[in-house]
Amino acid sequence: MEVVASVAVLRERVGASRATGQVIGVVPTMGALHEGHLSLIRRARADCGYVVVTLFVNPTQFGPNEDLSRYPRDDEADRAAAEAAGGDLLFKPPVEQVYPAGFSTYVTVEGLTSGLCGASRPTHFRGVTTVVAKLFNMVQPDRAYFGEKDYQQLQVIRRMTRDLDFPVEIVPCPIVREPDGLALSSRNRYLTPEQRAAALSLSRGLHAAREAFEAGERNAGALIRRARQGMEAEPLLRIDYVELVDAESLTPVEKLDLPALLAVAAYLGDTRLIDNCVLGH
Amino acid sequence: MEVVASVAVLRERVGASRATGQVIGVVPTMGALHEGHLSLIRRARADCGYVVVTLFVNPTQFGPNEDLSRYPRDDEADRAAAEAAGGDLLFKPPVEQVYPAGFSTYVTVEGLTSGLCGASRPTHFRGVTTVVAKLFNMVQPDRAYFGEKDYQQLQVIRRMTRDLDFPVEIVPCPIVREPDGLALSSRNRYLTPEQRAAALSLSRGLHAAREAFEAGERNAGALIRRARQGMEAEPLLRIDYVELVDAESLTPVEKLDLPALLAVAAYLGDTRLIDNCVLGH
Repeated sequence: MEVVASVAVLRERVGASRATGQVIGVVPTMGALHEGHLSLIRRARADCGYVVVTLFVNPTQFGPNEDLSRYPRDDEADRAAAEAAGGDLLFKPPVEQVYPAGFSTYVTVEGLTSGLCGASRPTHFRGVTTVVAKLFNMVQPDRAYFGEKDYQQLQVIRRMTRDLDFPVEIVPCPIVREPDGLALSSRNRYLTPEQRAAALSLSRGLHAAREAFEAGERNAGALIRRARQGMEAEPLLRIDYVELVDAESLTPVEKLDLPALLAVAAYLGDTRLIDNCVLGH
Repeated sequence: MEVVASVAVLRERVGASRATGQVIGVVPTMGALHEGHLSLIRRARADCGYVVVTLFVNPTQFGPNEDLSRYPRDDEADRAAAEAAGGDLLFKPPVEQVYPAGFSTYVTVEGLTSGLCGASRPTHFRGVTTVVAKLFNMVQPDRAYFGEKDYQQLQVIRRMTRDLDFPVEIVPCPIVREPDGLALSSRNRYLTPEQRAAALSLSRGLHAAREAFEAGERNAGALIRRARQGMEAEPLLRIDYVELVDAESLTPVEKLDLPALLAVAAYLGDTRLIDNCVLGH
């Protein structure tokens, strides 16, 4: 797999591939690839004639006190993993190329970005939509693959893509979990063994709420309480939010309209983890 | 010239033309075409194999008390004029298609948009950059043509295009003037004969400042005073601003660094007109 840093070379490769009639897929990542990312690359491989994996730890989506400086980086392992999963080209631009001197343009999605993770990370989604718009213009893909683990991000990117008329199909891919249920995340690498054990309470909380839902519970407050119970029993865990929202608009629901998203975020030490499940799918 | 309302048909036509190796040019307009617009279309015709003219009176770039509802519209005359100037396709999307229900994404350029027209029209440039980003994604042109009459707009669009990596070359085109010096504008149609006569003081003020510059004047305050003098003598004219700014960053200059932009805006009744000249070109 070729590793490319320059937009001009990237466009040349993509253009040559498109000229032979290939469908172009892109999988945007911040590296530290795990099975979740690899499932996106495999899906793109199955769907597309040419698969671009992008690797860029995007500074504008980190808040001032977040983990930008310690975000895990292992470019050689990422390259090998992306290649094994079926990537054709790894695009790894330097930060000065992505954000040149005088950079001052931002893409913002209103409404969808104000709740859930947007409440505790107020500039996060602006950074995500800005860099994804840039990557779409750099790569010019036909399809782009995003994981449902970052469900709010997925909805925000869908909205941006529709609103700005990007000629790109957004393909959502299911959450990949460890055998015990923990959702895969590059940030799981930060966890101590004790934190790793406590982190299970996120997926367990979601599972308990889903069981209540499947047994007929439709009261949002009751479902949220079920999800919180196990999490609140974990002394290492600090809950950021547990919310039940409309799966499309991401606005809170009181009485369950389907499909609804049950979304959780919590801290283990300095590490912030998220997880979710859609009820009524 | 074909008139097209749907993005799908537009993309089909552009795609077919690109497949034969043609360079695609776009001239974005709000209609009410005058010789300024036609000069852009002629330039695009000379440069490109396929020329798309867009006609869309963009509501998001008008403020709440501005002239959206009375903005001049004459679609049949515009079609004929665009065709005569060399347009291949007129793209005229309905507003519900451009801004569908739930629309909530905006493209913003910071800094460049805060002064000059941005000071009195705080949401104007956000509307411009958002719709131009959309039009770029709808048309997918190789080149886009903008007039220097809207100099701040041109700089803002250049910045957006660079910052978001749109694969589009921005081509600036010179101001077109009436024989007596008045810069062409769709809004000139609003002027009474008395206002039309008074409007000349904008270009006369710029001309007086340019003469002083050519005679060696380099003090920004003195040049601004020269431009204001004739304008302030006109009782029908209400000045919005007269500013001398760096032609790249649009920040005010005190001592003249070249090239500098001398920009003016003024009201005649409810009609707001702008004009400018670059000193040191």
